[in-house]
Amino acid sequence: MQSWIRFLRADGHIGFGVLDGHRITEYEGDMFGNAVARTSALSLHLDEVSLLSPCVPTKVVALWNNFYALSEKLGKAAPTHPLFLIKPPMSVIGPNEPIRRPKDYGGKIAYEGELAIVIGKRCSNVSVEQADDYIFGYSCINDVTAVELLNEDPNFAQWCRAKGFDTFSCIGPVVQREFDWRSARVVTRLDGAERQNYPLSDMIFSPAEQVSLISHDMTLMPGDVIACGTSIGVGSIKDGSTVEVSIEGIGVLSNVLQNALQCITDT
Amino acid sequence: MQSWIRFLRADGHIGFGVLDGHRITEYEGDMFGNAVARTSALSLHLDEVSLLSPCVPTKVVALWNNFYALSEKLGKAAPTHPLFLIKPPMSVIGPNEPIRRPKDYGGKIAYEGELAIVIGKRCSNVSVEQADDYIFGYSCINDVTAVELLNEDPNFAQWCRAKGFDTFSCIGPVVQREFDWRSARVVTRLDGAERQNYPLSDMIFSPAEQVSLISHDMTLMPGDVIACGTSIGVGSIKDGSTVEVSIEGIGVLSNVLQNALQCITDT
Repeated sequence: MQSWIRFLRADGHIGFGVLDGHRITEYEGDMFGNAVARTSALSLHLDEVSLLSPCVPTKVVALWNNFYALSEKLGKAAPTHPLFLIKPPMSVIGPNEPIRRPKDYGGKIAYEGELAIVIGKRCSNVSVEQADDYIFGYSCINDVTAVELLNEDPNFAQWCRAKGFDTFSCIGPVVQREFDWRSARVVTRLDGAERQNYPLSDMIFSPAEQVSLISHDMTLMPGDVIACGTSIGVGSIKDGSTVEVSIEGIGVLSNVLQNALQCITDT
Repeated sequence: MQSWIRFLRADGHIGFGVLDGHRITEYEGDMFGNAVARTSALSLHLDEVSLLSPCVPTKVVALWNNFYALSEKLGKAAPTHPLFLIKPPMSVIGPNEPIRRPKDYGGKIAYEGELAIVIGKRCSNVSVEQADDYIFGYSCINDVTAVELLNEDPNFAQWCRAKGFDTFSCIGPVVQREFDWRSARVVTRLDGAERQNYPLSDMIFSPAEQVSLISHDMTLMPGDVIACGTSIGVGSIKDGSTVEVSIEGIGVLSNVLQNALQCITDT
């Protein structure tokens, strides 16, 4: 029971279960509670389904300035508490779903490859020592940003607007329950060319510290996601380009930036 | 069918319906869809229930700098697009529920009395002319802020953290469907003393403009709330003090700031 997914079958059924190689064992109940394998169902092949975001967060808490390498490059001091913004549930998409360019925005759109923490149990005011018990597993996230909106107003940095558009939180392909972030790297490829390759050991706040500290700011719910922040190598995505965020032990998350014309054609 | 509420009965039942004076007619179905009066239920008296937040938002979009009077006082130019942050669903409470001081925060906590727009239909990229069709009604909101956290880090204004704590979005008492914001004022009282009294006609972006412009930034869902921003008179709340936000035609929203000791005693 390592790699949990959510999926859509061709007949419209949405299910969840465990991925083992290319075989899916469907479960029923609550992924974060008492999930049991469906005895009546045959196992499915990965080719028979479309993957969805592996969880359905009530919020995505997205960190800024959480890697020493980027912090030094930007010349910003390491923070004393996680610095975050909140991305709304409608921003979430899964593997292979298109990132949609906002209708009235023609500016630069940036990728940010990141580790995602997926919360498994409701938590509030938990200690760093307790925090791992509340982490269900880990995924990849592309924390997409309409960068030219961020500082459009001189008095107010528009983090929630620039990062909150529908489809701007790509999550997947799986939630990996047994994962050692200390030895893993985040690799981001743009149309196949490597653009980011950084070690998670460079994080300023570890996953347990993030969960503990943020749980003192708000109650975290099962399925909620913390995007751990990105490091150096952020860049912009041309319309039609593919971004792949990959973390060894979790998998590869791939999404294409679709422009408005493509969106209209598809509708 | 003017004033919609959600309520908790003494037996634990959560319902919704229409408030007329002190009588509640319970409805079933979807408040934002095909709600029908329950024929089997007797009407309830307001004294028999506890009011809950009249809606359950997937997000609260909270505006900053949306009143000319405050904008001038702060010496900030009027924005060209609504400036907002996102508050998470767990921040929402209803009338008479306590605002809880965060466990590890001893600093100033401020009230902000505001008009709340409650969305009735899923909307994305709607025009200003269409926007009123997507507004279900209006409520009062106290957009509570842990002000000393806001600028704790010199590089990142912590809007989502300072305003995102559990219980920091007080909403109610009702959603009023027929309400003319143009002639209404927001009055905020702290332990009975008037602290804010400002006209909604001073808004920079009208409700229809807010819904239209924000619907170009993200899909708004039924029950979602836009907090229209506050004007002059914001101040801090002492532990144990009562904040009342009242808007004629909607009602009075009352909440007490409970300190940590009171929270522990109550548990």
